[in-house]
Amino acid sequence: MGVPEELGDFFAVVPAGGAGTRLWPLSRQGRPKFLLDLAGEGSSLLAMTWQRLVPLTSPERITVVTGQAHAEAVRAELPQLQAANLLVEPTPRDSMAAIGLAAAVLHERHGNVLLGSFAADHLIRRPNAFHTAIRHACLAARQGYLVTIGIEAHRPATGFGYIRTGAPLQLAQAPQVHLASEFTEKPDAETAAAYLASGQYRWNAGMFVATTKFLLDRLAELLPALHDGLRDIARAWDGAHRNAVVERVWPGLQRIAIDHALAEPLAARGQVAVVPADLGWDDIGDFTSLSRVVPGGQLGAAAVIRAESPDAFVAAEDRLVAVLGVPGAVIVDTPDALLVTTTHHAQDVKDVVAQLPSELR
Amino acid sequence: MGVPEELGDFFAVVPAGGAGTRLWPLSRQGRPKFLLDLAGEGSSLLAMTWQRLVPLTSPERITVVTGQAHAEAVRAELPQLQAANLLVEPTPRDSMAAIGLAAAVLHERHGNVLLGSFAADHLIRRPNAFHTAIRHACLAARQGYLVTIGIEAHRPATGFGYIRTGAPLQLAQAPQVHLASEFTEKPDAETAAAYLASGQYRWNAGMFVATTKFLLDRLAELLPALHDGLRDIARAWDGAHRNAVVERVWPGLQRIAIDHALAEPLAARGQVAVVPADLGWDDIGDFTSLSRVVPGGQLGAAAVIRAESPDAFVAAEDRLVAVLGVPGAVIVDTPDALLVTTTHHAQDVKDVVAQLPSELR
Repeated sequence: MGVPEELGDFFAVVPAGGAGTRLWPLSRQGRPKFLLDLAGEGSSLLAMTWQRLVPLTSPERITVVTGQAHAEAVRAELPQLQAANLLVEPTPRDSMAAIGLAAAVLHERHGNVLLGSFAADHLIRRPNAFHTAIRHACLAARQGYLVTIGIEAHRPATGFGYIRTGAPLQLAQAPQVHLASEFTEKPDAETAAAYLASGQYRWNAGMFVATTKFLLDRLAELLPALHDGLRDIARAWDGAHRNAVVERVWPGLQRIAIDHALAEPLAARGQVAVVPADLGWDDIGDFTSLSRVVPGGQLGAAAVIRAESPDAFVAAEDRLVAVLGVPGAVIVDTPDALLVTTTHHAQDVKDVVAQLPSELR
Repeated sequence: MGVPEELGDFFAVVPAGGAGTRLWPLSRQGRPKFLLDLAGEGSSLLAMTWQRLVPLTSPERITVVTGQAHAEAVRAELPQLQAANLLVEPTPRDSMAAIGLAAAVLHERHGNVLLGSFAADHLIRRPNAFHTAIRHACLAARQGYLVTIGIEAHRPATGFGYIRTGAPLQLAQAPQVHLASEFTEKPDAETAAAYLASGQYRWNAGMFVATTKFLLDRLAELLPALHDGLRDIARAWDGAHRNAVVERVWPGLQRIAIDHALAEPLAARGQVAVVPADLGWDDIGDFTSLSRVVPGGQLGAAAVIRAESPDAFVAAEDRLVAVLGVPGAVIVDTPDALLVTTTHHAQDVKDVVAQLPSELR
């Protein structure tokens, strides 16, 4: 299958970070969410992300950014990943540094190219719709926009951020692309209901497409110190002094998410576009989300008996789990830790993790 | 320590039956409740029962009645139990047959003696009060009564049967002993509250003291076929034909609890006495009861984190258990089965067990 023209210089970047604390004890610091088979399909979320990206480009054009602790596991999960395309961060510096490092390194290696950044640990049930959306995003990105994907909101979700849709961008080949006028944080239930009713809001799936030049120029404008540090590192990356420069510069880089660093300020000045799409997307950010996406409310091979427990979710292997009289129960059974909670408390799991001894986190 | 005169011909009988289905998966058909260390004190309930009885009599005068499946385990738990004093039932025939068999065998061996029957799987926190109550029960039993112990009701419990107190028996040495006018089944909450308010009701701890002659004569009167069968078996028990007689007679014996067989009809005609006592007693019949009696709401060596989960009960070993937002949670973790429920559903656990494959019951 040939790659369409609009994807001709498209490079994919996958920041593989974030432990997925709200999915403890399934996810751990040493076994983060992107390494787990949370879709129950026999593949890690990272491997599924890879499979989804290959048709848009080629294995040689996919870059993964991860932490030292997970480099080995990422290599094992992605045998087709080129050694040079695994960018290992010495310490976590949030998503702007991770994506910015990839943009700067790709810009050094290949000149100005199209870059798409995609979380390693989200679920997309409709890959064809995803591919179409990214092709349209590439068209818009070439016009000088930071382009994101706006997922059709099916319910008043409080677990996702939202993108407010602005005026149409009037692209002949992709007339459905609009300006994005605003990014919002996770709303409360009332606000989420108002968003849904307005028809103007879409879920923010955390995907970004832009040219490396656009990304780096805007970063130079908005966060010049971070830009300069990343460019210094990128220039040294493929040479003899990488380690020395990384050791000197990396620790001082600002910790900031790309949403705050670029998406929000650029949206305010009309430089962000949104491609509407319905991808069967979920960020699987917590157990409410996980219990919604796994078939039959169960992950793993345990035998499960549910009595007076509608919507109970069970993740367990090799044993029988009986749940009686706990609607919305969340039961996650692992060899060294067991969590019992309900979907109403899905957001609070991180507070439990904060109380744990480090070897159990 | 010498045994008081009133205990001179006292023999203790411990029917060790009943799986304790409502405590699944702690209790199993193959590992019934009486073999478990549910008090968290390093001893099985059966061994604690034995320890409590020895001061009332002597190891040679304690008889245990159990099923074939548990004979080996009972011997292992009670090294002082005499081989001849372990009566093994070929199949379960409920408590009247178990206690009646012991009464008939003791009567054959020793003539008319005092017999006290005590469940193998109850908890008594105040053994001294228990000893005093049994001494008083023996005094009353010699006057020709079936004597039971009425536990002071501390709350409107719906998990226990009740005994209604009648007129004083006017025993000079034990003036607090009364007639028992009625035995009741487990009441609903409203009835339990009325019982408590009346001051006339006590909890039925399922203990009975009587002479073997009184027991057997009343049984002959009320259930002559069961009496005759048990006497036939008892006459053959210590001879060469035990197996043949047991095989012929036992399967036809009526299945009936001693409460229905003797206690209720005899109470109606003024032949049951009740000794009031406050023993720190509990039958540990379900998880509500168990969670009340174990210190700290926990059984086993697991590390437990509770958040927004008042009164959560956890039984687990060798791992961390976190419970978040489930008040009254009951979490019972065993190598092959995990139960998650709440104390409100403690009575329904048996319905879950009924759905299980037999190897997990």
